[in-house]
Amino acid sequence: MITILRLGHRPARDKRITTHVGLVARAFNAEQMLVDIKDIKLEKTLEGVNARFGGKFKVQTDVDWRAIIRNWDGIIVHLTMYGEHLDDVIKNIPKEKNTKLLVIVGSEKVPREIYEKADFNIAIGHQPHSEVAALAIFLDRYFGGKELRKSFDGRLVIKDSRKGKLVIDTKKH
Amino acid sequence: MITILRLGHRPARDKRITTHVGLVARAFNAEQMLVDIKDIKLEKTLEGVNARFGGKFKVQTDVDWRAIIRNWDGIIVHLTMYGEHLDDVIKNIPKEKNTKLLVIVGSEKVPREIYEKADFNIAIGHQPHSEVAALAIFLDRYFGGKELRKSFDGRLVIKDSRKGKLVIDTKKH
Repeated sequence: MITILRLGHRPARDKRITTHVGLVARAFNAEQMLVDIKDIKLEKTLEGVNARFGGKFKVQTDVDWRAIIRNWDGIIVHLTMYGEHLDDVIKNIPKEKNTKLLVIVGSEKVPREIYEKADFNIAIGHQPHSEVAALAIFLDRYFGGKELRKSFDGRLVIKDSRKGKLVIDTKKH
Repeated sequence: MITILRLGHRPARDKRITTHVGLVARAFNAEQMLVDIKDIKLEKTLEGVNARFGGKFKVQTDVDWRAIIRNWDGIIVHLTMYGEHLDDVIKNIPKEKNTKLLVIVGSEKVPREIYEKADFNIAIGHQPHSEVAALAIFLDRYFGGKELRKSFDGRLVIKDSRKGKLVIDTKKH
């Protein structure tokens, strides 16, 4: 069970980036995203994706992130370019079905205490890139690529197509 | 040699998303990003990253994308949730050292002709998520994860750290 904790969200500046973090979390088999700052529009956007494409991905904004970290009864992973290299540590992260994983995805500045509280500070390479990409690569490695085949049982189902689009609306007869 | 072609860039709305696409392209071992719409600020941002973290990643905006596609003497890959599943086609993409790969990364709407012109339309799963994540996963699979160890020989070098930050400024004595 994977929860994403998105810190440093600024609704004006990060609107699309945090939306992408949420969409990646959902598509790559996380169960929910918690966001530090209130953002109803973000919640609605992801609910709309569930309505069309299925699944039960949850988003909650305006959370007390310090309390969440303090009370977390599982493993805390923090994705940061300053951490240990992904390939060196991914094998050490528990993968049992009942593992409760909190994956912290920061914005530009992350409070020092996050580095201390995390069980693993993990670098998806040591170059600057993107928290969206970092989360995708982390989850892809964690699930061994199987997340890309996850079935969402949604109203809209997209099928493989060599050229063009093949979308099935399962509610249309 | 990998070139990213970013289509449908809207400087106001997509500023940070296209920046993330460029940062991912650079960090995951592409050589350049071409962008359809003029955006000097975007070019400067990525030049600044090279100056600090190294490498020779190039960005060119305001390109004639139709001419680029028409004249491309290599393989064209288009990342889209409507394509064939990554795992089914990644093995068919040439990986020789002299392969010239053009990876097209669209925004919300992509002209129909792109689907026709691409040698491969590839879906990083069939769920909506993010072009930033799609590009990262594609390049990670293409390079078999080795891109995360790429050396950029930059002024700033980040070292593995279990807690906190370890940044070496190679120009400081």
